Amino acid sequence: MTETNRVWRLRKRPVGDITDDVLSLENEAIPEPGEGEILFRLNYLSLDPTNRIWMSDMEQYMEPVALDAPMRGVVCGTVIKSNTPEFKEGDIVSGIGTWADYQIGSSASVGLLGDTGDVPVIDAFGTLALVGPTAYFCLLDIGDPKPGETVVVSTAAGAVGALVGQIAKIKGCRAVGLTGSDEKCQWITEELGYDVAINYKTQDVGKALAEACPNGIDVYYDNVGGKILDECLKLMNLHGRIPTCGLISQYNATEPVPGPYNYDLILMHRLKIQGFIILDYMDRYPEALEALSGWMKEGKLKARLDVTDGLENALQAVKKLYTGDNMGKLMVRVKDV
Amino acid sequence: MTETNRVWRLRKRPVGDITDDVLSLENEAIPEPGEGEILFRLNYLSLDPTNRIWMSDMEQYMEPVALDAPMRGVVCGTVIKSNTPEFKEGDIVSGIGTWADYQIGSSASVGLLGDTGDVPVIDAFGTLALVGPTAYFCLLDIGDPKPGETVVVSTAAGAVGALVGQIAKIKGCRAVGLTGSDEKCQWITEELGYDVAINYKTQDVGKALAEACPNGIDVYYDNVGGKILDECLKLMNLHGRIPTCGLISQYNATEPVPGPYNYDLILMHRLKIQGFIILDYMDRYPEALEALSGWMKEGKLKARLDVTDGLENALQAVKKLYTGDNMGKLMVRVKDV
Repeated sequence: MTETNRVWRLRKRPVGDITDDVLSLENEAIPEPGEGEILFRLNYLSLDPTNRIWMSDMEQYMEPVALDAPMRGVVCGTVIKSNTPEFKEGDIVSGIGTWADYQIGSSASVGLLGDTGDVPVIDAFGTLALVGPTAYFCLLDIGDPKPGETVVVSTAAGAVGALVGQIAKIKGCRAVGLTGSDEKCQWITEELGYDVAINYKTQDVGKALAEACPNGIDVYYDNVGGKILDECLKLMNLHGRIPTCGLISQYNATEPVPGPYNYDLILMHRLKIQGFIILDYMDRYPEALEALSGWMKEGKLKARLDVTDGLENALQAVKKLYTGDNMGKLMVRVKDV
Repeated sequence: MTETNRVWRLRKRPVGDITDDVLSLENEAIPEPGEGEILFRLNYLSLDPTNRIWMSDMEQYMEPVALDAPMRGVVCGTVIKSNTPEFKEGDIVSGIGTWADYQIGSSASVGLLGDTGDVPVIDAFGTLALVGPTAYFCLLDIGDPKPGETVVVSTAAGAVGALVGQIAKIKGCRAVGLTGSDEKCQWITEELGYDVAINYKTQDVGKALAEACPNGIDVYYDNVGGKILDECLKLMNLHGRIPTCGLISQYNATEPVPGPYNYDLILMHRLKIQGFIILDYMDRYPEALEALSGWMKEGKLKARLDVTDGLENALQAVKKLYTGDNMGKLMVRVKDV
């Protein structure tokens, strides 16, 4: 292993949008795994809205990435060297790692991706490793949608949102998606089966939502917070549920962001708002994987990856999450399996 | 029945605080009950924060009171005349009525108060009819407090808050209450058993809460919304619960009120916020009444009424809810049973 090891390190905390000086790409030595550890080579790096949270020192659900430390990411890699009986050379692992060609892991940070059958590793990792179980548990456990109910999803063409709408349809619901371009609107209705798509950049969201949800909203799957949350609150039915999976509209904010102005409707309509992070569901992963892979095999669940090649392009690619330029699951391919 | 019937009517919708021209007191004829209806004479009128909601035409959980209609209230009265076998003359009823000496009711709006045993009717009505079941179900069902957890309560010396803290203690929790005077602070700690009281008018709420809750907050029983909600959000533990029973800080607002600035912590700490209105629990009332009256008999649950005499004083009395001048359950006594 004489190859160099490229490592993206966090150099400053972003203020507002992610700028080019936030991360730097360094050439470093390949690390040596210690007792109980493995060395793995990165195949795929998942880019997720939560990356922006980890970069900042805001209050969050894990420790933020330390300044000058390697950037954290959800990764898929191949074991090169193992100092633990839990993994062997050649195993494909996925979990929490860093934006680096070579990295150290252990059973505390990664697990075997497992047999993906006919599904290519990149698709299995892209859909099943993180976003699939997120969509599955957050919608079904917290949102608890019932057949005939109306489910509204923000960032509906994003990695999670694309799956949420399809799962809502599988469960017999009406699915209404908000996204940011006519192309995405077309994709989520024609390919994914959303009943109605709303372009939040060009349409009057309140008016369009009211038209799309003549029976009100029973479940609003929130990925964004902000103004769209406020518009949805106005239409929530009695005892409606708002599973809160993300608040991407405010991650890049530089000033304090007020909560929804229609907060009082939580009381008046007896709504439930509940935050969701997939970390709480690790012990129930098998349930989600079985359901999701079953639906994929039956052709009921379609996934779409938005792949950028080359670890060196990760910083430019992650910005797409905040400009809304991605369609489907954003991913960096470093080396195909 | 030659006596006149005094009726408070809603003359304008309040803007900001409740002013004297919002209601007017009229002398009217005593109404005649129709088929299936009763006529009852008002004994006690409960004054509650929700009165301000009913006066306004904001989005709410029932129809607002119509302009020029009798003001709605939670009432306790004695049946004078009955045109239904469900009630007989002399029965004591409680439920939803109006601010009037004589009024028409039916089994759709009122029910028998039932045998109160050794407890005087005014106490039974004051504690058991509305605020007791509210405190009971909202804390236990939505808050789900576990022994050893920390429960924070706003308007802790109010009708509901006074009970919530005591129920939290019965359930083995640490109870921290926020209220607006040193006298109330002393009352809730010395008489009701709150572990710590915070005077939100004179103390730094964030600092005082942090000191009072060294292990964080597991349940924040919200009666107020606003800045106190924001301070509590900062201290909420992972998977904390915020049963939302009232948002009194904003009922009198004349401008749109932003939601909490720490809304993002709902996601980061996977909190649950859920609105509560007692109307949803009517079928489970017996469970609450049995538990509450049992605790009252055992001396574990103390209630305190703040009684104003005379229906003519109802308008001045209801204002006390918004100036924080009441201590315990606010009530107008029209005619003792």
